[in-house]
Amino acid sequence: MRIVDLRSDTVTIPPKEALATILEAPLGDDVYREDPTVNRLEAMAAEIFEKEAALLVTSGTQANLISVMAHTKRGDEVIVEYDSHIYNYEVGGMSWIAGVHPRPIKGVRGFMDPAAIEAAIRPKDIHCGETTLLCVENTHNRAGGAVITPKQMEAMAEVARRYGLKVYVDGARIFNAAVALGVKPSKLVEYADSLSFCLSKGLAGPVGSLMVGPKDFIERARKIRKVLGGGMRKAGVIAAPGIWVLENMVDRLKEDHENARKLALGLSKIKEISIDLDSVQTNIVIFELKEISAKVFVEALAKRGVKCGAIGPRRIRMVTHYGITSEDIDYALKAVKAIIDELSE
Amino acid sequence: MRIVDLRSDTVTIPPKEALATILEAPLGDDVYREDPTVNRLEAMAAEIFEKEAALLVTSGTQANLISVMAHTKRGDEVIVEYDSHIYNYEVGGMSWIAGVHPRPIKGVRGFMDPAAIEAAIRPKDIHCGETTLLCVENTHNRAGGAVITPKQMEAMAEVARRYGLKVYVDGARIFNAAVALGVKPSKLVEYADSLSFCLSKGLAGPVGSLMVGPKDFIERARKIRKVLGGGMRKAGVIAAPGIWVLENMVDRLKEDHENARKLALGLSKIKEISIDLDSVQTNIVIFELKEISAKVFVEALAKRGVKCGAIGPRRIRMVTHYGITSEDIDYALKAVKAIIDELSE
Amino acid sequence: MRIVDLRSDTVTIPPKEALATILEAPLGDDVYREDPTVNRLEAMAAEIFEKEAALLVTSGTQANLISVMAHTKRGDEVIVEYDSHIYNYEVGGMSWIAGVHPRPIKGVRGFMDPAAIEAAIRPKDIHCGETTLLCVENTHNRAGGAVITPKQMEAMAEVARRYGLKVYVDGARIFNAAVALGVKPSKLVEYADSLSFCLSKGLAGPVGSLMVGPKDFIERARKIRKVLGGGMRKAGVIAAPGIWVLENMVDRLKEDHENARKLALGLSKIKEISIDLDSVQTNIVIFELKEISAKVFVEALAKRGVKCGAIGPRRIRMVTHYGITSEDIDYALKAVKAIIDELSE
Amino acid sequence: MRIVDLRSDTVTIPPKEALATILEAPLGDDVYREDPTVNRLEAMAAEIFEKEAALLVTSGTQANLISVMAHTKRGDEVIVEYDSHIYNYEVGGMSWIAGVHPRPIKGVRGFMDPAAIEAAIRPKDIHCGETTLLCVENTHNRAGGAVITPKQMEAMAEVARRYGLKVYVDGARIFNAAVALGVKPSKLVEYADSLSFCLSKGLAGPVGSLMVGPKDFIERARKIRKVLGGGMRKAGVIAAPGIWVLENMVDRLKEDHENARKLALGLSKIKEISIDLDSVQTNIVIFELKEISAKVFVEALAKRGVKCGAIGPRRIRMVTHYGITSEDIDYALKAVKAIIDELSE
Repeated sequence: MRIVDLRSDTVTIPPKEALATILEAPLGDDVYREDPTVNRLEAMAAEIFEKEAALLVTSGTQANLISVMAHTKRGDEVIVEYDSHIYNYEVGGMSWIAGVHPRPIKGVRGFMDPAAIEAAIRPKDIHCGETTLLCVENTHNRAGGAVITPKQMEAMAEVARRYGLKVYVDGARIFNAAVALGVKPSKLVEYADSLSFCLSKGLAGPVGSLMVGPKDFIERARKIRKVLGGGMRKAGVIAAPGIWVLENMVDRLKEDHENARKLALGLSKIKEISIDLDSVQTNIVIFELKEISAKVFVEALAKRGVKCGAIGPRRIRMVTHYGITSEDIDYALKAVKAIIDELSE
Repeated sequence: MRIVDLRSDTVTIPPKEALATILEAPLGDDVYREDPTVNRLEAMAAEIFEKEAALLVTSGTQANLISVMAHTKRGDEVIVEYDSHIYNYEVGGMSWIAGVHPRPIKGVRGFMDPAAIEAAIRPKDIHCGETTLLCVENTHNRAGGAVITPKQMEAMAEVARRYGLKVYVDGARIFNAAVALGVKPSKLVEYADSLSFCLSKGLAGPVGSLMVGPKDFIERARKIRKVLGGGMRKAGVIAAPGIWVLENMVDRLKEDHENARKLALGLSKIKEISIDLDSVQTNIVIFELKEISAKVFVEALAKRGVKCGAIGPRRIRMVTHYGITSEDIDYALKAVKAIIDELSE
Repeated sequence: MRIVDLRSDTVTIPPKEALATILEAPLGDDVYREDPTVNRLEAMAAEIFEKEAALLVTSGTQANLISVMAHTKRGDEVIVEYDSHIYNYEVGGMSWIAGVHPRPIKGVRGFMDPAAIEAAIRPKDIHCGETTLLCVENTHNRAGGAVITPKQMEAMAEVARRYGLKVYVDGARIFNAAVALGVKPSKLVEYADSLSFCLSKGLAGPVGSLMVGPKDFIERARKIRKVLGGGMRKAGVIAAPGIWVLENMVDRLKEDHENARKLALGLSKIKEISIDLDSVQTNIVIFELKEISAKVFVEALAKRGVKCGAIGPRRIRMVTHYGITSEDIDYALKAVKAIIDELSE
Repeated sequence: MRIVDLRSDTVTIPPKEALATILEAPLGDDVYREDPTVNRLEAMAAEIFEKEAALLVTSGTQANLISVMAHTKRGDEVIVEYDSHIYNYEVGGMSWIAGVHPRPIKGVRGFMDPAAIEAAIRPKDIHCGETTLLCVENTHNRAGGAVITPKQMEAMAEVARRYGLKVYVDGARIFNAAVALGVKPSKLVEYADSLSFCLSKGLAGPVGSLMVGPKDFIERARKIRKVLGGGMRKAGVIAAPGIWVLENMVDRLKEDHENARKLALGLSKIKEISIDLDSVQTNIVIFELKEISAKVFVEALAKRGVKCGAIGPRRIRMVTHYGITSEDIDYALKAVKAIIDELSE
């Protein structure tokens, strides 16, 4: 049976060529800053986003946590989008570990209304923590991979800057946004102080994320990474395939977007399914089942080799990625139709 | 000039009779649990709310923080009302100090829809903290002193209990709710695990709040109070007037409610002012100015001896309390009309 | 039976005159900074120690916790004396709540060798937190109320200052030190950035401590006090007797010292008891039992109305205070001799 | 010029054969627990130490931090050795991130006297955190790679167990201890609840550590790893060489021990150097310079290609590891003699 795993782009198996680079890469102890491969990857990341410095960390969650810690002091308030990953799927690290107070704002496809941001900034008052950071997610996972445009970034950052907040972009899938918009990645963070991106999602690297920002921010981040135990020794084994995927896998993301669109179009023709095609901008497809329970749907589909995720009582998420072909989409659509027929009987 | 201070019921000057009790009260070192006056106050509080035990703390903020800490472990999620005091006006202590992750739900006059509570409880998943506590505020300050009824409590607590959450009531003004509804205070927390109430608001005591709940909860609270430095030595000096106000000032709250209603009715007849009379259930009056800025209004009114608070760009809060008479309300209404006339010219 | 309670100077019952001031004191809401009595007490405290500002808090533990938080950022290292109260008897608040890493140094009668301090300051290294604070306790409780002299302070502070550390004095009993040395209290903190002292120990006030230091430090402290719930409403009820005891009880401490010396001399003549008379410098008497267990001793003595504390398997602490007379000391010595005779049989 | 890098065994370049395994290893998303290589490595680790389960983390520091968090609740006290890595070189993570209060005991070559442990366990008292964990380091880095024997473990664990403490072994170099003693690694942790060990030190793997212990402990650890961002996606790229080094590099450690001994013997013959040969039990050599400053020594030696570390004003640490040959030791000794001659002139 064909297996089509659409649960997440994190399940991607890295290309052999990416892994092969590990054998050739010069290695060293990165705690002493002596791993040339890590140093090269960090320099590349800083250059791509036109910021001063970068730091390799083990995951997007770690990048988000360290970024919050390096931008704030204990007791500060941080504005986040209500459905954002940092607020919802990182075990509350910003409260638990960073000790900052989250203030979620409901956005539209990840975009937070500048007036809502302004209203969420706390007054200078003894009863309130100081609001010091705005977090933006681009692309926005729970909004179906929706893209935040440079113009939207500018609007949100303008308010933030006016009140002295820093702006951080959780860019786990920022290359998807860049490819979808056809802009340079750096254009997406022109108004941000810092960002992070993942090597191990659409780019198909095995492990790792990069934090990017000003030098002093990255220096603070390095120490916080240490206390969290995120400092790795010969981290070149992760950095080497990271370099390869940065050089070879960015443009390929458009295939994932095409497959997602094809999948979304196919799904939109099925009666049982309700989908907003405008929301499918990158590699994520989110839709609602009208009558079938998401849990039942996921299980039935899995029996036909198609894996996806239930993200609500009737809500399903599918994600395209490296290794998923146009034929896989055909197969997945066929399987969806078949099980809906079965379950609707 | 007459001074009518409607900023808060916390500004109340305690009755001389309350303070006089301090001179007669037996005192001792409460850290050794040897202050008979403190012990008596704690026993009274437990009895009134029909719970096992109680603990004197220095403020409502401290009661809220300790309650969250004693009901949770680090990294848990806690459901709070979006406009609640615990989430908005306690310097983010639940995140900063307790290390728990707040999940705010927008309520209606403080009541959170049980379906919304259920949706906010996180799944057992490695990405999510465990939701272990629901916080309810009664009366609800920012909802204009709105009362949560025993029936509403039952509905919210039912969901909480089904998922294993504890229920905590921030009852800073819970006696106002009891008086407004004409029910025993204990009736309001029948479905709650624990609560706190303030001596220094409508009850007109000088200082202090009481935490009330099961014995083991109060024991944990005692240790947490110690680490926060909330343990006091001869705390009988606070407990003695606390006992007096509990015995003498609860029924008096209906005067504050009558004054608040009279104030609200008077305000509702002024064109510039928009007020929802149904929301005025206890001693708090919140209204909107149609054209005048809240800041300007507050300053102009203060010049005539009437003090109140701006809680939004055009939003004003006035609170009645011990020491505010019916004549003070007449005076305040006259002053409001006068300055609106002035400012509208 | 006569009761002689030597467990601690915290058990003191305040003088009636001190409590009587509460009835006359002007009160107000201290959260709005409108309690004139609190403001007066804070101004007095700042003046006595010749620092810019002061803040009333509920306990010595709270003063210590807030001071650590206001002088450090999360992850810093703090140097403390190995047997100090802040490190041993405050539920680990500096680690738990403040998130700083304690580095204890063994002192001699509370004095830490400057060379040991220097060795304990961590290098600028990614593996180490930044050392930013030195805490000194004067008088030093577990060292038997030993006094730190201005000269010793100067020596310790010199190292601290050289490395950019702040110096904080836990002066819960600093007036005992001043009286013992016959110097102005301010002289004892000339080389310190900040300090705190207790109203409710030798000074015999009912409740409260004061933090004293630079204005910006006190402003940060005010916000941290708020998040801990240490902000009190009509705190004048605590401040009023605080003012009275500051004005009337400081010089009286020499009586406690005389009683302690008399007690120590008496004990030194008992064979079973080993005591270092040089260590008895203020109002605390610590001694060792040679053969009898401390627990048994404490219980037997309590039966004769004399209360004291076991602070080690054979170690006993007795503390003189307001209300303990020379006759009480005679009685206590007689009781000690009697029970030692009994227990030694 | 020959380069002999004796700064640490973490600088080791992994064998090509170890890295080559990455290309053949089956990979998957470890957050879904679907990486077969990670699962295999974790099973191996559990089996070697005869415990129920294991978890791959990114570093020894992360293993230590997570272990402390998974064994304690906030505010607990943890007993550590005064010179241990966890207390000294992990940025105070146990205080900063875990919120527990460290209580250091001075050991002898890493061994803490059971009586000292017992004395350090806090009484059940409202002033004290609950002591719940004892941390032991084997081999002990700052004690010169000293070995803790099973008998010593038993003695320390006996006290711990009597008081209900858990016992955790920071076994970053535990295989060195096993090889030095000629015992099975599991024998060294028979009396411990949990342990961790590093793949990237003497074993010469590129990155990673394993936590090993009971199933419920490892489950809690998995969630804590998530909040710290230590969860990795296709972590098989780290696990694959980890498996290889576990299978191929353990016995080889005796070469490092022989080289360390040879180095120590050579150094002991140099007048300027003071060294305790008995302390050289594994792969670490620590010695004192009599007159030359450590900083000057390190710099002069580096110019001849021999790298080592200054760990005190006159204290030097050298570590042997994979890649360091007997000839390298000869070279290093020659270089040391030469520079001492130079510097002593």
